[in-house]
Amino acid sequence: MSSTETMLAARWHPPSFDIRVESVPIPQIQDPDDAIVKVTLAGLCGSDLHVYRGEIAVPKIHISGHEFIGEIIQLGSNYGPNAPSTETSSQTSTETSTETSTETSPRPALYSTLKLADKVVAPFSVSCGACAPCRTGYTSRCLSSLLFGSPRLDGGQAHDAASWVGVHTGGGGGGGNDVEVGEGEVGEGEVDVGKLLRGINDSSLLLLSDILPTGVFGAKQLLGHPKMQPALTGIAWPACLSPPSTSLTNTQTATPALTPLTPSDRLITLALIGLGPVGVCASIALLDELARRGLPYKIVAIDLNEGRREKMRRIYEVIGADGKGGDGEFVVAGPEEAKEVVRRWTAGVGCNAVLEVVGHNSALTTAYELVRAFGVITSVGVHAPKSLPFTGQQLYDKNISLDFGRCPARAMIPDAFRLLVKRQDVFGGVGTETSLIDRVTGIGEATEMYRAFEKGQIGKVLFDPWK
Amino acid sequence: MSSTETMLAARWHPPSFDIRVESVPIPQIQDPDDAIVKVTLAGLCGSDLHVYRGEIAVPKIHISGHEFIGEIIQLGSNYGPNAPSTETSSQTSTETSTETSTETSPRPALYSTLKLADKVVAPFSVSCGACAPCRTGYTSRCLSSLLFGSPRLDGGQAHDAASWVGVHTGGGGGGGNDVEVGEGEVGEGEVDVGKLLRGINDSSLLLLSDILPTGVFGAKQLLGHPKMQPALTGIAWPACLSPPSTSLTNTQTATPALTPLTPSDRLITLALIGLGPVGVCASIALLDELARRGLPYKIVAIDLNEGRREKMRRIYEVIGADGKGGDGEFVVAGPEEAKEVVRRWTAGVGCNAVLEVVGHNSALTTAYELVRAFGVITSVGVHAPKSLPFTGQQLYDKNISLDFGRCPARAMIPDAFRLLVKRQDVFGGVGTETSLIDRVTGIGEATEMYRAFEKGQIGKVLFDPWK
Repeated sequence: MSSTETMLAARWHPPSFDIRVESVPIPQIQDPDDAIVKVTLAGLCGSDLHVYRGEIAVPKIHISGHEFIGEIIQLGSNYGPNAPSTETSSQTSTETSTETSTETSPRPALYSTLKLADKVVAPFSVSCGACAPCRTGYTSRCLSSLLFGSPRLDGGQAHDAASWVGVHTGGGGGGGNDVEVGEGEVGEGEVDVGKLLRGINDSSLLLLSDILPTGVFGAKQLLGHPKMQPALTGIAWPACLSPPSTSLTNTQTATPALTPLTPSDRLITLALIGLGPVGVCASIALLDELARRGLPYKIVAIDLNEGRREKMRRIYEVIGADGKGGDGEFVVAGPEEAKEVVRRWTAGVGCNAVLEVVGHNSALTTAYELVRAFGVITSVGVHAPKSLPFTGQQLYDKNISLDFGRCPARAMIPDAFRLLVKRQDVFGGVGTETSLIDRVTGIGEATEMYRAFEKGQIGKVLFDPWK
Repeated sequence: MSSTETMLAARWHPPSFDIRVESVPIPQIQDPDDAIVKVTLAGLCGSDLHVYRGEIAVPKIHISGHEFIGEIIQLGSNYGPNAPSTETSSQTSTETSTETSTETSPRPALYSTLKLADKVVAPFSVSCGACAPCRTGYTSRCLSSLLFGSPRLDGGQAHDAASWVGVHTGGGGGGGNDVEVGEGEVGEGEVDVGKLLRGINDSSLLLLSDILPTGVFGAKQLLGHPKMQPALTGIAWPACLSPPSTSLTNTQTATPALTPLTPSDRLITLALIGLGPVGVCASIALLDELARRGLPYKIVAIDLNEGRREKMRRIYEVIGADGKGGDGEFVVAGPEEAKEVVRRWTAGVGCNAVLEVVGHNSALTTAYELVRAFGVITSVGVHAPKSLPFTGQQLYDKNISLDFGRCPARAMIPDAFRLLVKRQDVFGGVGTETSLIDRVTGIGEATEMYRAFEKGQIGKVLFDPWK
C-alpha cells in the first residue's frame, strides 16, 4: 500500500461529546520497533467517557480506542529470528551492577517470536518489556509508556478496506507490548494455548485488552493486601505477615495471648462499587479466587443503574450454578441498600475491603463509609484532578489503606486469560442476558454508539472494522 | 488509701499551650475490669504536641500522657485464677457461628495471670483483647478503645506520695490492655523474658508504650506491602503475590516473557520522613528487618532539624559498627538534599517506598515526590482534619498505595520487645549522644518540659513521678 491510502477511523475532537468518523491515512512503519496490526475488533470502554465528557481535558484530535485485537501484517526491522532473546538478556542482566535501577535490558523474547499473521491482543497501554518497571511487572508505568487512543498514540477504532493501527512507541521498544496468544510450540508441562483458543469465542479475546486484566488486577490487589491476611489465613496481625523472628510471640511471658480468631473473623466481607464491564470482571475474578482458595465470603456489588444490577444478578446465577462460585453470599444493591446489608452482615463494623471500579469521589466516599477500621480500599477507576474526599485524620482514625492506579495489563494477561478460558459461559456471549458485550457493530456507527453508551442506553460495544 | 487522697498530675487545659501541674484525687477501682498502676515512668511524646498546639481541638481538662510503665498495686474483682482462660476461649470460639463478626469472646489470659506487683507496660491505647478487631491483632481499633491521656481516659503523667493511674475501660474489658513483660513460667522452646529483662535498662521499657511498636509497625507495613514484593523476592508482579494458578505464566505461548528482574531491581530504596523518636525507632526497625533478610538497601532519612539529623547519624554509626546493620547505605538529609540523593540513586525513577512519621501534609507531599510509580507511602503520623494534598488523578497516574493509622501497640509489642533487647546499645541510654531519651525528670517540671519540647529545645523527656 502507498502512504496516500486512507481508512475510516473514529476520531476524538475536543472539547467534549464529539466523536467523528473520518478518513485518515493508513499508518506506516516509522521506527524499526513498529508493528502494523490489522484490527479485527476494537472496544468502547467506560474510561473513554472521562475524555468524551470533557472531565479529563484532551485538547488534540486523535483516533480513539485503547482496546483492540488483530493480526500482524507488517513488522519493523527489529523483529525476527536474529533479535536478542530473553535467554541472552537474562544472562546479561545477572552481571549488571546495582548502581542504577533504570538500565535498559536487552529486548524481550517477543522481538524474536512475533511473526506476520500472528493473532495479537493490544494491552491498552504500550510497554517496552525491558525497562525497570516492565521487568518488575509494572508494565502500565513503563518508562516509555503511552496509552492507545490518546494524543501521542492513535487508538484502534479504525476501519477501511485496509484497516491497521500502527503500534509504534517512538523508539522506546514496542516489543513487549503486543501479546501473542495463539502461536508457539507447546513444551512439556505447558498449556496448549492454541487448543484453549479453539474453544473460546473470538470476540471475548477483546476483553483481554483492558477490562478483564483490570478486574483481575483489582481482585488480586485487594486480596493480596497485608491487612486482609488475618481474615484469609486465620493468623492475627502481625504474625500473618511473616514467621515470627523468635518464639517470643508464642509465650505468655512476653505478652499474654489475645483471644484467638473465631470463624466469624475469617468470613471475608467485601463491597464492590461499579457494575460496568470492569466491575463485572472484577466480581468474577474475586469470586473465582475466593472459590479456588475455599474461602467463605459475603459480597455486596453496588451500582446506581438497575439494568447493570440485573445483569450482575444473572451472571452470578450462572457462576453459582456450576458449583465453581464458592461458598458465600453475593448481593447486588444500590449504595444505600448496600450500607444496610453491610451493617447487618458485620454488626456495624464494616466490610474488610472495598473494590472501587468507578473513578469518582462519590464512590470513594461510599467506600470509606462501608469499610471497617484496618480496611482496604482498592481503586482501579480512572480519577479526575480533584482533591480526595478524605482528610488525613479520617484515614488515620480508621487505619485505612488505599491502592490507586492503572492496571499493568501486559503483566496481568496470563491470569486474565486463564479466567477467560474458564468462564466462557459468561465471557463468551454477545448480546445475551449474561454477556458483557452488548453489540458488535461497524465503525461507521461510532458517533451514535458513543452517544448511547454515554447515556447508559447500551452496554459494551465492539467495533468490527470489516463489518 | 481513702478517696480523698490526692496526687500531683500534669493536666491539659484547653485551648492550647497550657499544661498545669495540679493536685487531683488518686484513682480508685470503679469497675471489676479496672487495675490501678503505680506509675514508675511516664513519657512525653511528639504526638502530644498536636493537642498542645491546639491543632487537634480537645476541649476537656484531663491528665496527659499516653506512655507509661508501672507496677500493679490493685486489681478489680474480674482478675484472678478463676478468670476465663485463653484455652477455654479458644475451644469456645471454634464452635461460634459465622453470623456476625462482633461477638465477644471469653476474656483473654491476662485476667487469670495478672498479679499484684507485676511490672506492666501500658500500650498507649486501651484494647479489650477479646473483640473482633483485637482477635485480629488490630488492637488500636478495639471496639471499646480509648486513648490514654484523653478526655475519656486520664493519662500517666501523674505523681504524689502515692501515684497511680486507673486503668479502666468502662466495662469494655481492660484485660487485654496491660502487657506483662517480666513474669511467668518459662516453657521449653520459649524465651526467658525475665532473664532478658535483667539485661536491659528499665527506662527503655517505656519505649514499648508507643514509639518502638509504632516504628516497628511502620517498618512491617511498608516491607509487607504487595507492591514491595518484586524487589524483596526477585519475582515480578503478579506472580510474587501467589503461586501461578496454572503453568500459563511460564509459557511463551501464553505471553512471551518480559525481561527478568536484574540485581538493580532488587535494591531496596527507601525514604523515611521525620527523625523524632518514632522516626529513629522506625529507622532501626527497617535496618534490622533488612539486615535479618540479607537485603541490600539505600535509605535516606529526612528531617528539617539538624540536631535530629546529627543524632540519627550517630545512631547509624553504632548500628553499622557491629555488623548487624546489613548491607547498604544510609544517608541523613534535609528534604531538598534527599530529593537529589534519591534522583541519583534511582536515575530519577524514585524510591520504592516512603515511611512518613510526621503527620503533616508537607511530609505527604514530599513523600509523593520521592516515591516511584507503583510505590508505597506508609504513614504512621497522626494527621489533622485537613484535606489530603493529592488529587485522585495524581495517585492514579503513579499507581500509589497509601497506608494510614494508629499502631496496634498491644499486638506489636512482642516484635518491639525483641528489638528493644537486641539494640540496648541505642535504646538503653539516657542523655547520651545516641540515646532516644534525653532526660528523666520530676512531674513538677511538666509545664516547662512541654514548652521546651514544643520548641525543639529538648528531645524525649520521661517523668519519674517519684523523683
